[in-house]
Amino acid sequence: MHRIHTIPTAADIRAAAQAIAPYIHQTPVLSSQSLNALIGVELYFKCENFQRIGAFKMRGAACALRALTPEERQRGVVTHSSGNHAQAVASAARALGIAAHIVMPTIAPAPKRAATLGYGAKVYDSAPDNQSRQAAADALIAQHGLVFVSSADDYNVIAGQATAAKELLGEQPELDILLAPVGAGGLLSGTALTAHYFAPQTAVWGAEPRMVDDAYRSLQSGRIEGNDHIMTIADGLRTVLGQRTFGIIRQHVERIVRVEEATIVKAMRLMWERLKIVVEPSSAVPLAASMEQPGLFEGQRVGIIVTGGNVSLDQLPFCQCLSAAQP
Amino acid sequence: MHRIHTIPTAADIRAAAQAIAPYIHQTPVLSSQSLNALIGVELYFKCENFQRIGAFKMRGAACALRALTPEERQRGVVTHSSGNHAQAVASAARALGIAAHIVMPTIAPAPKRAATLGYGAKVYDSAPDNQSRQAAADALIAQHGLVFVSSADDYNVIAGQATAAKELLGEQPELDILLAPVGAGGLLSGTALTAHYFAPQTAVWGAEPRMVDDAYRSLQSGRIEGNDHIMTIADGLRTVLGQRTFGIIRQHVERIVRVEEATIVKAMRLMWERLKIVVEPSSAVPLAASMEQPGLFEGQRVGIIVTGGNVSLDQLPFCQCLSAAQP
Repeated sequence: MHRIHTIPTAADIRAAAQAIAPYIHQTPVLSSQSLNALIGVELYFKCENFQRIGAFKMRGAACALRALTPEERQRGVVTHSSGNHAQAVASAARALGIAAHIVMPTIAPAPKRAATLGYGAKVYDSAPDNQSRQAAADALIAQHGLVFVSSADDYNVIAGQATAAKELLGEQPELDILLAPVGAGGLLSGTALTAHYFAPQTAVWGAEPRMVDDAYRSLQSGRIEGNDHIMTIADGLRTVLGQRTFGIIRQHVERIVRVEEATIVKAMRLMWERLKIVVEPSSAVPLAASMEQPGLFEGQRVGIIVTGGNVSLDQLPFCQCLSAAQP
Repeated sequence: MHRIHTIPTAADIRAAAQAIAPYIHQTPVLSSQSLNALIGVELYFKCENFQRIGAFKMRGAACALRALTPEERQRGVVTHSSGNHAQAVASAARALGIAAHIVMPTIAPAPKRAATLGYGAKVYDSAPDNQSRQAAADALIAQHGLVFVSSADDYNVIAGQATAAKELLGEQPELDILLAPVGAGGLLSGTALTAHYFAPQTAVWGAEPRMVDDAYRSLQSGRIEGNDHIMTIADGLRTVLGQRTFGIIRQHVERIVRVEEATIVKAMRLMWERLKIVVEPSSAVPLAASMEQPGLFEGQRVGIIVTGGNVSLDQLPFCQCLSAAQP
């Protein structure tokens, strides 16, 4: 595949699906009659928690790395990430024989750091703020001539993330609504492009914690908004939109539904109990949206992209000891 | 399908698969490269935790109920069970328009009792011992002329359970070993018959907690052995073999691997972390076997039947508060 420099076309997304096929799993779509009866919605869950490295991020990283020229591959890649994107770049780079340099904030969970090292990447410490992380990556670029791989705001990454919805529509073509969480917007913008090209009758909505409703406010104001704090349990959604993801979301996403933290935990627990899948809090935000706003979803056929399952079993929000410790 | 009165044939298992198809999910087979690398075995997990009612028991119950005559369906069915079999009979009976009467010990978990009621079954209390349960069922049979549905020791149930391995072999035909946990032996005997007819090159082994190693001892002594106590965390495996399941297991199961309780918990946690699936302790017993006896499994292609995912999220064995409470 060639490098994508403009909003991905239908052909770009098809090419991306083909290019990344050897590096990803085609994940199953799960459904639960008892959950559907409880919520009053026909729900189809695209289980990217079963994706390689445990999250959809593998798609975008594989796509971005596959688009590099032989000369760029030779130089190696760099990114900064505290979690799934770090593992995705490290894993895809190893599969493609590319050297990966990953800047990780010192507060990153130890298992994610260990997994990234396990994929053979070189890991560098940085302070947790975005400026420090970017500065560390920039220094590595200056020193080694590395290629930067954005976690979301890159048309190649967006084309990769778009393939999850494409697979879901392949199994369930007649969806009324496609629902994806929104953080930096890579997944939501890719999902929106896929529906636009391959299922134009399907509406695409975002789902976002009310605590970090920057995407909701960005759609209202027409410019990229930030967050005053990032105190949501949905740790994958603490980032803000980029220019490219915002441009696509503005054009193709119909609405963003905001949800409360308590509903995210309830929805996460329901997914564990009814679907029998381990998912991270971000993955539960779309189901939470359908629980908080039943009027919007009632009787609809809704596809949900389950973002990932990388969660610490020692710190489950519905563990009794943790619940008891809460006010 | 007709009622099966002798050891199921290949044709019986094929007929069972067809008869129960409308009432069950064809569950996915999952695999994890990182888990395989860790264990040193190529593992394929048949995810019956995604089955209707959250366990493989739905197959056997649906098969037994489909084999009833119209006159028997009219009379209704009865069974006794503290867990998955209760839900399976209740759910299959509702789907087939049959009245279900379920005797449940008073110690049965409240969610399982509620789920059984939720499927429209009539639930009756009994003391937890097997004699009391059977007596309560017998009284209902005498009073209402109900048909008894055994949880395992019935050739129709065995034929139903056999379909899980048949689906797995449909996706992964070249397995060296098929591994299933053994409690009352319905799943293991069905799995053994499926391999015997459809994959004779595949060995079938059982996996059992050392705490309740009655099946291991039964194979050694040549008669059905009991357990002095049932203190295993694998609550689905606390029962003993029946005449029919023992006969089949004796003939077609090569060996039974026994595992320690601590390894079951470790294996369960690994399945949650690496496969991102919610499974009950019984489901982890086969993986525990491959962890305790690496020499037996090294480099083999091993299929594992994951029995179910009905576990209370409030009482996870790897929850920090529970671990801390342990000696």
